[in-house]
Amino acid sequence: MSFAAVDIIRAKRDRKELSDAQIEWVVAHYTAGAVAEEQMSALLMAIYLNGMTPREISRWTSAMIDSGVRLDLSGVGRPTVDKHSTGGVGDKISLPLAALVAACGAAVPQLSGRGLGHTGGTLDKLESIRGWNPMLTPAEFINQLSRVGAVICAASADLAPADKKLYALRDVTSTVESIPMIAASIMSKKIAEGTDALVLDVKVGAGAFMKRRDQATELAKTMVTLGSAHGVRTTALLTDMSTPLGCAVGNAIEVTEAVEVLAGGGPPDVVELTLSLAREMLSLAGIDTDPAEVLASGAAMDSWRQMISGQGADPDFVFPAPRETHLVCAESAGLVTRMDALAVGVSAWRLGAGRARKEERVQAAAGIMCLVKPGVEVAVGQPIFELRTDTPERFADALSELADAVTISPAGTAFTRTPVVLDTIRG
Amino acid sequence: MSFAAVDIIRAKRDRKELSDAQIEWVVAHYTAGAVAEEQMSALLMAIYLNGMTPREISRWTSAMIDSGVRLDLSGVGRPTVDKHSTGGVGDKISLPLAALVAACGAAVPQLSGRGLGHTGGTLDKLESIRGWNPMLTPAEFINQLSRVGAVICAASADLAPADKKLYALRDVTSTVESIPMIAASIMSKKIAEGTDALVLDVKVGAGAFMKRRDQATELAKTMVTLGSAHGVRTTALLTDMSTPLGCAVGNAIEVTEAVEVLAGGGPPDVVELTLSLAREMLSLAGIDTDPAEVLASGAAMDSWRQMISGQGADPDFVFPAPRETHLVCAESAGLVTRMDALAVGVSAWRLGAGRARKEERVQAAAGIMCLVKPGVEVAVGQPIFELRTDTPERFADALSELADAVTISPAGTAFTRTPVVLDTIRG
Repeated sequence: MSFAAVDIIRAKRDRKELSDAQIEWVVAHYTAGAVAEEQMSALLMAIYLNGMTPREISRWTSAMIDSGVRLDLSGVGRPTVDKHSTGGVGDKISLPLAALVAACGAAVPQLSGRGLGHTGGTLDKLESIRGWNPMLTPAEFINQLSRVGAVICAASADLAPADKKLYALRDVTSTVESIPMIAASIMSKKIAEGTDALVLDVKVGAGAFMKRRDQATELAKTMVTLGSAHGVRTTALLTDMSTPLGCAVGNAIEVTEAVEVLAGGGPPDVVELTLSLAREMLSLAGIDTDPAEVLASGAAMDSWRQMISGQGADPDFVFPAPRETHLVCAESAGLVTRMDALAVGVSAWRLGAGRARKEERVQAAAGIMCLVKPGVEVAVGQPIFELRTDTPERFADALSELADAVTISPAGTAFTRTPVVLDTIRG
Repeated sequence: MSFAAVDIIRAKRDRKELSDAQIEWVVAHYTAGAVAEEQMSALLMAIYLNGMTPREISRWTSAMIDSGVRLDLSGVGRPTVDKHSTGGVGDKISLPLAALVAACGAAVPQLSGRGLGHTGGTLDKLESIRGWNPMLTPAEFINQLSRVGAVICAASADLAPADKKLYALRDVTSTVESIPMIAASIMSKKIAEGTDALVLDVKVGAGAFMKRRDQATELAKTMVTLGSAHGVRTTALLTDMSTPLGCAVGNAIEVTEAVEVLAGGGPPDVVELTLSLAREMLSLAGIDTDPAEVLASGAAMDSWRQMISGQGADPDFVFPAPRETHLVCAESAGLVTRMDALAVGVSAWRLGAGRARKEERVQAAAGIMCLVKPGVEVAVGQPIFELRTDTPERFADALSELADAVTISPAGTAFTRTPVVLDTIRG
């Protein structure tokens, strides 16, 4: 079938539902370069403003998967289950989680990305470890998955190439924050990756893409439906991102915090979320093992060490210290009742932990340690944040982002901690 | 001031009002190539769906004018007044009107365009006259305007170049039918042209861009406001385009019908609309002359002959006949109660009178004569349309467009003729 791009744009502009054939045609022809960038961007804005039905989103996702290859992981010899987070501040959960779930007997085939903006990227964090290699051949990928049970590496270019092209276009046309497009983008990559099952960590709050719980719920439901429709057992957890996750926000310091969790320590919220996600993943994989016991046994740390050495790095590597640090201290005494995840994320980004453009490099040592968390009482002058960077000229910018990041209320103010996991949405 | 295009797109996407500085920046940088086509198309779709405030439309129009030159017609020695039609089927009014208003003492500086789609272009019609030259230098333009009082010619590339670039983009991204963008496009060119006053003929009905009266009224009010804001006295007539205007639809046959009007004949609706528009133009120009008397005197025909010979052609030129004609006849007897302007316009286009792409040529002889009009009783087998073309292989396509173009009701059915002029909107 042949269509004119203008007719497809007009239909969505006029709030009509696109047919399966129209969606397949426009995604395939855009990927091949036969639908122009300016036509796709007009269509994306019409989709952003007029939405898509569940059938349209499902077909769009299928068309993106069909633009490339779909991996076959049936030879791995373990049930495969992956996790995807919609992105947050201090979200290093993939690191201890992949090792833990592998140690429980599943295989975690995590094809991951780099960070853009204030949310960090898993590959950026692991690249803080000198020599660690994110680029694996398909054979190396399958081999490590069978042997160790977990791989975190970069996706190859032939996985959902339509998504790669669309994401770059959305980025320059202010059409990123579209729930149908976010859902199709995430799910096309995860489905093409070949995993049997998937747990989604949908973040909600100041530091997340989805600021409101109703948006996050809609995104979660959309993605769970898409997974099921494409034969991937999918569950979503709605989790809090109003405050940074754990204490470390950056690259090397987040790896260090992840290793602390694997060693049996680490911040309670990071441990809780790691175990919650592991339980859902193991349940979908049909493995009846208590991840808390496996974590306590040290087996997850063994898996971690194999993951790191399997990709060319030394698990005992010690991170270089940042060139300079700067403490931010409490100006009043009282109870910390709010620590804004977005402000902390943007500040860490300004220090060099993140990038503004794809071609930029991140600093391994840059970032922020949150020395207290909401619910803690502080004295005047007590350190709240430790800022780290190799380029101290960035302190001024980073500090200005933190100006209103923390609320200190009078001691004794009633305070209820937000739960880490807000809701669970099953297929 | 410097802005990021993504922030401007996001603002309009989120229904925020753009600032004057943002609008000036984005139009200027798009014209210069610094804002990408895909960014402008996303912005255009957001404008299409979320609209613009009167202030935004006015500033957008100013920015388009400022992208090129604004002509100075103060040396012409007559009051200048122009007319613009939003486009219809059989709309040859510019031809007798420019000559008539010139004969009454005003100067009509009509920079015009070619047709695209089912509505004809004034230049295409005049180019049916062998040797007629649409391209004048600024000196030739001013000279004929002073001497004859009327010029119809092509706009130069330095008049609102932003509009030229934007129109081409809107055409491929299904963002043509946006009232703010239509208004800004028309008015930027007419204001840049340098006319003191302007009468707008805003068409409404099946054969017009605006199918509904409320849309047409909104467009008319928007343009009248824009004219006043830019120092051009502007009035709009809302006129009927449910049925073709006059009998001739095409190029050469429309010129012939225009000459009939100048000779004191012609279809009553064409004469009525020509006189109505002339009265408004003369009123805005401050000339207290009755155009009906001037038309009857033959002075308008004299002006017409000067206009044609002034642009290199022979006013006594006789048009070659079309290679083939085909009659469409009534299949039942009764009263013609409907003749669909869109169907007739598309059919004439298919016969070769119009073009689908800018680079195509039109056939001078192609078109349709409407041999009856709504309100007339017909017998079985009586001819209704005469189709004309030099490429008879197009008859089949043209006939299929006419299949449902006419309604013949039982003789004696109550029938009320739609007035030619539906409303007048003054500044």
